[in-house]
Amino acid sequence: MKKAFSTELLRKILNAEGAVGTWVHIPSPTSAEFLAYSGTDFLVVDLQHSLTGLEVAFDMIRVISLLEVTVLVRLTGLDILQAGRVLDAGASGIICPMINSKEEAEALVSACRYPPKGVRSYGPFRPRIMWKDTYLKDAIDGVIVIAMIETPDGINNMDEIASVDGLDGLFAGPNDVALALGEEPEMDPNNPIVRKVLRKIANSAIKYGKFAGIATDSSVFSKVSAAWGYRFHIVASDVKFMERGLQKMVAEMSERV
Amino acid sequence: MKKAFSTELLRKILNAEGAVGTWVHIPSPTSAEFLAYSGTDFLVVDLQHSLTGLEVAFDMIRVISLLEVTVLVRLTGLDILQAGRVLDAGASGIICPMINSKEEAEALVSACRYPPKGVRSYGPFRPRIMWKDTYLKDAIDGVIVIAMIETPDGINNMDEIASVDGLDGLFAGPNDVALALGEEPEMDPNNPIVRKVLRKIANSAIKYGKFAGIATDSSVFSKVSAAWGYRFHIVASDVKFMERGLQKMVAEMSERV
Amino acid sequence: MKKAFSTELLRKILNAEGAVGTWVHIPSPTSAEFLAYSGTDFLVVDLQHSLTGLEVAFDMIRVISLLEVTVLVRLTGLDILQAGRVLDAGASGIICPMINSKEEAEALVSACRYPPKGVRSYGPFRPRIMWKDTYLKDAIDGVIVIAMIETPDGINNMDEIASVDGLDGLFAGPNDVALALGEEPEMDPNNPIVRKVLRKIANSAIKYGKFAGIATDSSVFSKVSAAWGYRFHIVASDVKFMERGLQKMVAEMSERV
Amino acid sequence: MKKAFSTELLRKILNAEGAVGTWVHIPSPTSAEFLAYSGTDFLVVDLQHSLTGLEVAFDMIRVISLLEVTVLVRLTGLDILQAGRVLDAGASGIICPMINSKEEAEALVSACRYPPKGVRSYGPFRPRIMWKDTYLKDAIDGVIVIAMIETPDGINNMDEIASVDGLDGLFAGPNDVALALGEEPEMDPNNPIVRKVLRKIANSAIKYGKFAGIATDSSVFSKVSAAWGYRFHIVASDVKFMERGLQKMVAEMSERV
Amino acid sequence: MKKAFSTELLRKILNAEGAVGTWVHIPSPTSAEFLAYSGTDFLVVDLQHSLTGLEVAFDMIRVISLLEVTVLVRLTGLDILQAGRVLDAGASGIICPMINSKEEAEALVSACRYPPKGVRSYGPFRPRIMWKDTYLKDAIDGVIVIAMIETPDGINNMDEIASVDGLDGLFAGPNDVALALGEEPEMDPNNPIVRKVLRKIANSAIKYGKFAGIATDSSVFSKVSAAWGYRFHIVASDVKFMERGLQKMVAEMSERV
Amino acid sequence: MKKAFSTELLRKILNAEGAVGTWVHIPSPTSAEFLAYSGTDFLVVDLQHSLTGLEVAFDMIRVISLLEVTVLVRLTGLDILQAGRVLDAGASGIICPMINSKEEAEALVSACRYPPKGVRSYGPFRPRIMWKDTYLKDAIDGVIVIAMIETPDGINNMDEIASVDGLDGLFAGPNDVALALGEEPEMDPNNPIVRKVLRKIANSAIKYGKFAGIATDSSVFSKVSAAWGYRFHIVASDVKFMERGLQKMVAEMSERV
Repeated sequence: MKKAFSTELLRKILNAEGAVGTWVHIPSPTSAEFLAYSGTDFLVVDLQHSLTGLEVAFDMIRVISLLEVTVLVRLTGLDILQAGRVLDAGASGIICPMINSKEEAEALVSACRYPPKGVRSYGPFRPRIMWKDTYLKDAIDGVIVIAMIETPDGINNMDEIASVDGLDGLFAGPNDVALALGEEPEMDPNNPIVRKVLRKIANSAIKYGKFAGIATDSSVFSKVSAAWGYRFHIVASDVKFMERGLQKMVAEMSERV
Repeated sequence: MKKAFSTELLRKILNAEGAVGTWVHIPSPTSAEFLAYSGTDFLVVDLQHSLTGLEVAFDMIRVISLLEVTVLVRLTGLDILQAGRVLDAGASGIICPMINSKEEAEALVSACRYPPKGVRSYGPFRPRIMWKDTYLKDAIDGVIVIAMIETPDGINNMDEIASVDGLDGLFAGPNDVALALGEEPEMDPNNPIVRKVLRKIANSAIKYGKFAGIATDSSVFSKVSAAWGYRFHIVASDVKFMERGLQKMVAEMSERV
Repeated sequence: MKKAFSTELLRKILNAEGAVGTWVHIPSPTSAEFLAYSGTDFLVVDLQHSLTGLEVAFDMIRVISLLEVTVLVRLTGLDILQAGRVLDAGASGIICPMINSKEEAEALVSACRYPPKGVRSYGPFRPRIMWKDTYLKDAIDGVIVIAMIETPDGINNMDEIASVDGLDGLFAGPNDVALALGEEPEMDPNNPIVRKVLRKIANSAIKYGKFAGIATDSSVFSKVSAAWGYRFHIVASDVKFMERGLQKMVAEMSERV
Repeated sequence: MKKAFSTELLRKILNAEGAVGTWVHIPSPTSAEFLAYSGTDFLVVDLQHSLTGLEVAFDMIRVISLLEVTVLVRLTGLDILQAGRVLDAGASGIICPMINSKEEAEALVSACRYPPKGVRSYGPFRPRIMWKDTYLKDAIDGVIVIAMIETPDGINNMDEIASVDGLDGLFAGPNDVALALGEEPEMDPNNPIVRKVLRKIANSAIKYGKFAGIATDSSVFSKVSAAWGYRFHIVASDVKFMERGLQKMVAEMSERV
Repeated sequence: MKKAFSTELLRKILNAEGAVGTWVHIPSPTSAEFLAYSGTDFLVVDLQHSLTGLEVAFDMIRVISLLEVTVLVRLTGLDILQAGRVLDAGASGIICPMINSKEEAEALVSACRYPPKGVRSYGPFRPRIMWKDTYLKDAIDGVIVIAMIETPDGINNMDEIASVDGLDGLFAGPNDVALALGEEPEMDPNNPIVRKVLRKIANSAIKYGKFAGIATDSSVFSKVSAAWGYRFHIVASDVKFMERGLQKMVAEMSERV
Repeated sequence: MKKAFSTELLRKILNAEGAVGTWVHIPSPTSAEFLAYSGTDFLVVDLQHSLTGLEVAFDMIRVISLLEVTVLVRLTGLDILQAGRVLDAGASGIICPMINSKEEAEALVSACRYPPKGVRSYGPFRPRIMWKDTYLKDAIDGVIVIAMIETPDGINNMDEIASVDGLDGLFAGPNDVALALGEEPEMDPNNPIVRKVLRKIANSAIKYGKFAGIATDSSVFSKVSAAWGYRFHIVASDVKFMERGLQKMVAEMSERV
């Protein structure tokens, strides 16, 4: 039987220590396996801004979870039915983009939790074999549920969203936050208008006993955000690590004469 | 119509400049596309030491060639029929592992060239639309054919192999060369026994008017090998760039307290 | 031309005889084909609690329908658009989980029926070739539409749901029914609280001229439920038959000393 | 960098010239590539009446866009999240079936445009590499958004729909229009009741400064509809061209004695 | 149980009537299904000059055979093991390219026939369920085996090849025949040098009681070749029918002003 | 790091205990995962008599090996290059059908072992991450190599084959053995002519210090063969367990009136 699916990750997040992972954007169980061996605390299969469909996502979730790395999924949006599918495939948690209101956050939580805490349908296809009989009991609170704050409404309502019972964390997407504020999208932003909202999101999360997470492009900015209270760090992506390494090598070789 | 498929690559190799690429080991047209945008002179889809089957290889060859990056394929071995298939899919050249003798090198060349220079069957499925009517004329000499020297017999017979008409290059695989010599496999080897053979392979190629290629793990060793006469450099791989980038980030973050 | 797509199944269900099938949970047209040869009255491709995405589902629906076994699809949930897609792929009917109200049941029926009985869009991609020109006429009533009763609201509103015109059957999912009642999920339940509701669902269906269906784990419980009026039996699944057979063989072999 | 993604197509549509394409119904990047070489102004990957799932659709969008043919996607329905996914994959525009009202048309436009003109989330996975830094600026108005008028409500509300700011075109689907009117579905209809509504759709589009598009089965009817003001023509489909060509050949051969 | 797998096709070939099919080059069971409904006597899945790998070929063979259209496979080359795999998938016959000698033809026949007539291994994965218990008996002679004559050696040795016991037909590939003769490849050739050899191939087949087959681009040339004695006609391909139909429509539309 | 990949299996085989597994014939990592949880000592992915291509085989090998169940692959035939590919994907051993002679057995062993014991090329794509640095050392002898005795030549030469150094076991395929002897193919054969040869194969293996393996249809015949000295039992297959379970259920239900 595989290790309980979210305890260790949550412990790290709740400590000063924090947790670090990356976006999984290459739709392939092969690259996902190499990522799972690379030492992150978690990986996030992205169904929003990627070319990853459900079928290959299921294969990727399988491989990562078999290696006992906690796998989360970013949904395409607030799609209640998609949440159930990826959880039944073995994901340990959900990141939902574009949460605008308390009602949407409640619907998200409800989709991820079994009755009486929510309306998730029972049929844990892979959890039944991977985590055995304790899954129903473990999952009811153990599934990690994270709401992204990135739209104008979400920014306005962040406190109400943060207050939702059963939600584990708030997550900031700097690009969409910038667009919501009428600013240029920028990863690892210097823009003080954007930075101010990012700090508010962390504070809002902490005020309501939730953790704060953020997507960055580098460990440098992740450390900056850690100082603001962020404890859950998604840094760059498989694609970015790959293309940056390759581009750097090409540059080194071009100095070869 | 797309640019002629190998002229530019060959020009670079034949200049002091040399050419640089990487192994494509992730079986996905999505990651292949990002690689193709990253500035290499060529990419090599590997059918020997990978999880890449023919179907996804075809998709990868398509995407890379549509981006006008020269795509080569390393065959699983001396499989005459496989050579024809990947060429019909739009590969511009072939790297064949484990060539042991002049006869094997001749069979390889013959598989890659149309009559009367070889026995390749005519049916250029993608080249017909991508490179249009000149393909038959262009391909007869333009397909790049490279033999790997890495077995005991291959090492013994490297001069005879290098002498084969229609062969474009010799390629050294340091790991198998080391095993062939009874040494430990090592990328970017320091072992003088291995290094000596690697230098011999470059010399043999040059002596017979062929170019020399080599697989390395870093630009550092590629530059060392360039000094030995190597002009065709396959450095690391998509997987290695990805996992190294991720591991480095994790290490940086672990210094975060 | 293939046989009319649902007449025979409906005839069996409406007779005392009843109809029997199983869940198709392995996402593969190969295993689906073997299932289709095994003598069931129908098969249900499950898009809710499985790893089956739409693409492979389409391949499975094709193979099963070509073998003239009636294929139904359990939707992920009340997803109107998904219903149209699987019907255009050749499914003969729809099982929709988690129907809570009369309005939801009406929306489901409407999604599955062409105007003027519903709002299904016309574009029968596979039915056009498989069932030819009579499809439009046959499908308007012939598509089988089944609502699952398994949520607290669904249980409360089962009579209203059963009364919906154009609905063919009610379907009970014992696991979710149990959770809805605050009981432990259990296939083939002994729990009298759960059994009582299962009997009510059958009665409600019959009262409104609909058939009653149920998912069980064994023919034993299916026969029990048949005595309660259930006529549409989904027993176990491809995965369960496979793993039970294998486990039994391993056990027999372990007695081999 | 690839050419700006929709300028040329829009120029043709807005001229008397008009633009012509076909439905892409075969779920394969291989056939999509051959289509992209065949001289159409655009291609439409259909996610409504086909067996094409998201994963293969992404591969098809990639290949077509790399060949600098404008690729549009017909959504399964008014699925806001699906619109974002296919645009992030490199589609240049969206055709949405079954638009019933001004509110639905506004939701559609909003889903396809970045803030402040809409609510599309920022994360242009393929556009980032294919169209580089100008994408955000180009896409905000450049994404083509087309609403299908084909339901009873849509027909009643066509003027209000046509008036929606940010919508580029109205699109008529003759089959569903016929069903909506209580007539037999018919491509290239002769039915005057259907023809009358088709003419109204074109007029409505033109009145509000939008272009009019239509699906036909032949160039003959497309020319008829051009005379009514239609400027965006989807003629037949890959499947139909293939099966008609094959059937014609079989017929010719059967006259072979 | 499906109809006996090759009797009807062979009857037609052996009559003056002849049989007609096409190359299946699009790697998709969806387009294969439409082809199978289009009225040909047989279809040939091509593993030589296509992007079709084994996995999708199996899916295509399945769909075509379920529709009771005889499906043949052109191997990549004389690959004994590949022959067994596609026969176990449900192909009714094999076309092998580039047969050079009597020995190669004998190896081909042996690969396709069960002992004592050959060395095919017993394990009819799909035939076991599709054609039931008579398969072993039916297949021993019923599998259709066809050798392509297209290389210089094959042309020289055509009579010896034609004489091989258990071979059913000779098949001419005009492109490779032309290249073998030092002429330009040309479908439907006018070149008298090529035509002469094509007539010799038909004569050779007939002399040894075998049938003659040929690949053409049009029914026009197929009728020419029928006059030479060819009875098995592969005309154009799915891709060609599709692209020709589309190009013709685009041309018609361009005359639309 | 995963457990050493073959030690435990070999220990069981070499004890009186024996080892038991099944054929994996469904080309799906999903069903493979359920099989891997079902308690067998090993699983055999079959590339000979199945619809499993290399790509899905790699996914299946990955999942099974991640669950620390020993996975073997039956090659399509004596295909040296295929052996290397599946070992690089993480298979722990190879079963090769149709071995006819000592030379073929030696070629098989050589393909599976690194120099100096063989000619396997070094590039352990998945073993590098799954089994880490000891793989080269562990694999040189640890890869399990099994030759099938089933052809007339193989039966005649079984002693010479059994004597080959580096071979681990002989494996009997009753169907092909029967055909080789001119008898009807029969799993779990009663035919004394076939049984006699099966006993000879076990004796030959044991005489040369190799283990004997056999494919059966039931635990009953496996126990019979165990009495003859067979210690490695492949019983039935995933497909057979699935279809038998389903057929039995249908039969039980048909007694339901």
